Amino acid sequence: MKFTFVTLFQNIIEGYFSDSILKRAIDSNIININYLNPRDYSTNKHNKVDDTAVGGGAGMVMNPQPLYDCLEDLKNKDKNVHIVFLTPVAKQFKQNDAKRLSKKSHIAFVSGRYEGIDERVIESYADEVYSIGDYILTGGELPSMVMSDAIARNIDGVLGNSESLDIESFETSLLEAPSFSKPANFKNNYVPKEYLKGNHSKIRSLKIALSECKSKFFRPEQLKKHIIRTSYEK
Amino acid sequence: MKFTFVTLFQNIIEGYFSDSILKRAIDSNIININYLNPRDYSTNKHNKVDDTAVGGGAGMVMNPQPLYDCLEDLKNKDKNVHIVFLTPVAKQFKQNDAKRLSKKSHIAFVSGRYEGIDERVIESYADEVYSIGDYILTGGELPSMVMSDAIARNIDGVLGNSESLDIESFETSLLEAPSFSKPANFKNNYVPKEYLKGNHSKIRSLKIALSECKSKFFRPEQLKKHIIRTSYEK
Repeated sequence: MKFTFVTLFQNIIEGYFSDSILKRAIDSNIININYLNPRDYSTNKHNKVDDTAVGGGAGMVMNPQPLYDCLEDLKNKDKNVHIVFLTPVAKQFKQNDAKRLSKKSHIAFVSGRYEGIDERVIESYADEVYSIGDYILTGGELPSMVMSDAIARNIDGVLGNSESLDIESFETSLLEAPSFSKPANFKNNYVPKEYLKGNHSKIRSLKIALSECKSKFFRPEQLKKHIIRTSYEK
Repeated sequence: MKFTFVTLFQNIIEGYFSDSILKRAIDSNIININYLNPRDYSTNKHNKVDDTAVGGGAGMVMNPQPLYDCLEDLKNKDKNVHIVFLTPVAKQFKQNDAKRLSKKSHIAFVSGRYEGIDERVIESYADEVYSIGDYILTGGELPSMVMSDAIARNIDGVLGNSESLDIESFETSLLEAPSFSKPANFKNNYVPKEYLKGNHSKIRSLKIALSECKSKFFRPEQLKKHIIRTSYEK
């Protein structure tokens, strides 16, 4: 899988891939990371990439020309590239999208900065547009890192033996049950007794009950979906 | 404002603050970034920080001891520190939280890795727990970067003249209208005529109509909230 980050700020992204699971996947050639800077495509003599917004409004908007030429070049080099724009004006990225996108051969993430990207670029080149949540960030770089991380985990060979794709939050509609490690008694805080006894069916029942409690507290709408789904499955 | 990242992987975070708006805020001493590594607090002779999950299940869980000692040290040094755990089992982080948290003097973000953090640590030290969205990531580092970015934007002095906090997506319940920059005609793709004519009340009406279209398409539930709210306001 190839990830291309189209960004004015390569240096704020690349450190993320310098360690841990993703570094290992890069070292094993399972994933391959590239960067393209729209500024390198600017025909403006000062390499300008932004200008004031037409129609008024505070802030600068990224010009169409550098991005058009950059994305045209990208598509000429790989016609299978799947182009994703990160923008708050989009559908929300979810775990199902991460799984689906992990089957692509090449994904390009286009990060906006300033007040956004000229809409004509998005209309001309976007295969998909995504937001990662209902909050405002300084640019599309973090959302593109979040998406690439979530997608990468689903590519065969990225997770080693010590990690696992099984039964995690959002794979079902319930949040995960609490995890505990050793020792069983730490400063008089105890692991739930049932977890220690080794009766796996009892542990499983307790974990489901705890998942339901967590979901009810933090995400009542998730629990509702779960109840609807499990009643259909019966 | 002081941000402390409690993480095993400082190097995958620090590059993010090396450029752009956040670097400027650090250089002007508006924000201050620190790192604490739980591994430095491990009493295990190999500095181990994780172990198998009690009660079974794939993957490793972060042990209580290194995190307890690390967070205890942090609280002893600053009793006003506000401790946030990043975990999928949590409420969803939203723009309102970013605004509220921007008034704190010191926020510590605790990142889990592997299959998670021993629940006893969360129960003992969390002031709040957050998830940034319904997808699975390799660790809490990206969520903590996302939160710090969204919070930092709301601190006085972080955004310069060229950026703006006004009327952005999620500040209202509508998504933003499309932005356009120069030229008005780029390869026969035109900026909407109304944007060019300079009649600000007409531009405003068009922008609201376009916001409603975008919201209806991408986030129908947001539009519904907006309609409910505007009808109450009448």
